[in-house]
Amino acid sequence: MDNTGLVVDRSPLPPEIDGRVAAQLTFVAEADRLKTVLRASPLAAADRRENDAEHSWHLALMVLLLAEHSDEPIDVGHALKLVLVHDLVEVYAGDSPVFDAASVVDQHEREAAAADRLFPLLPADQARTVRELWEEFEAGVTPEARFCKAMDRLEPMLLNWLNRGGTWQMPGATEATVRAREAGVVAASSSLGAAADLLVEHGLRNGWIRRSPS
Amino acid sequence: MDNTGLVVDRSPLPPEIDGRVAAQLTFVAEADRLKTVLRASPLAAADRRENDAEHSWHLALMVLLLAEHSDEPIDVGHALKLVLVHDLVEVYAGDSPVFDAASVVDQHEREAAAADRLFPLLPADQARTVRELWEEFEAGVTPEARFCKAMDRLEPMLLNWLNRGGTWQMPGATEATVRAREAGVVAASSSLGAAADLLVEHGLRNGWIRRSPS
Repeated sequence: MDNTGLVVDRSPLPPEIDGRVAAQLTFVAEADRLKTVLRASPLAAADRRENDAEHSWHLALMVLLLAEHSDEPIDVGHALKLVLVHDLVEVYAGDSPVFDAASVVDQHEREAAAADRLFPLLPADQARTVRELWEEFEAGVTPEARFCKAMDRLEPMLLNWLNRGGTWQMPGATEATVRAREAGVVAASSSLGAAADLLVEHGLRNGWIRRSPS
Repeated sequence: MDNTGLVVDRSPLPPEIDGRVAAQLTFVAEADRLKTVLRASPLAAADRRENDAEHSWHLALMVLLLAEHSDEPIDVGHALKLVLVHDLVEVYAGDSPVFDAASVVDQHEREAAAADRLFPLLPADQARTVRELWEEFEAGVTPEARFCKAMDRLEPMLLNWLNRGGTWQMPGATEATVRAREAGVVAASSSLGAAADLLVEHGLRNGWIRRSPS
């Protein structure tokens, strides 16, 4: 879909819908774009790549089911908010695959510009709230953000495992770069970190991850 | 993908991953199927149908942004849990489009059988918790469930509006059946109910919804 206008431009909301609700529904409509942003990761249940909306839902489900493994206590409701908004800026900035060095060069600038364009569609108080949630996730220093980032690392590792390679087969992926992703899981959860380590160990042994030159 | 085995069968988890984590990751892998369950609703941002995982994420975002419009106070964190699991049984039972009378005949039996198969993949305590969340959503009697069901009605209405018809053009959709869906929004939120009413009023006026025979 054309990226210059808004999703609601194709069928403007009835004029009688009032300012605050109109702004919120305009944002909800714009967020539909997240379903069209493809990630590098393959699905496990079908032969296609995952999109950002599916990924965001999967992370939220993982937060709900795996929160008990966080090494620090976390507020699950708050963590769910973080994962639900964590990729929203990609509706304009696109996905930046971690094993694609070129795409991550200007990632921060592209995403900050997208945030400046997207969040102000909301009423001002909510624009601030959503921006704060996104910035909290990005900074990764609260226990909730640390755990959500761990899920954001673990989910594609699991999809790669189920695909016997997946993005581990990309040119930029080697044991070292995969281990750097694993570290994000270990940082938040010793038990899930141990599981991630087993996925990588067996992935190396099975030839699904390239060993780094020694 | 084949529906007789488990998603993890294609690449079994390393045997050293322990019982509880193994059960949870097996469930997380099985949930990947939700990304392959197509709904009748069209996306607004692309020319294809929506899948259940995308839909679940979109509802969660709506709960987060629109909770202030609930006529009763709701616990947003709890409501998020309800929408994240509300369609999980469709990984085996499939989607049952509301305007397709044939598909809803045995919907309850199909979904109960799917729940009996899916939820026990989790550790027993979590299987109970997730089943209770699903049953709370289905019953729709708590304030959170009522609001989540309202979002489950409003989201496809908004997608239909943005598509100038969408599932409102299905043979089983008339003003009466569309109004019955609108009632689910009105029941939880007077302000969002008023917005839904405007979408239907203008939809009728624009010819995007068939008027019922008078």
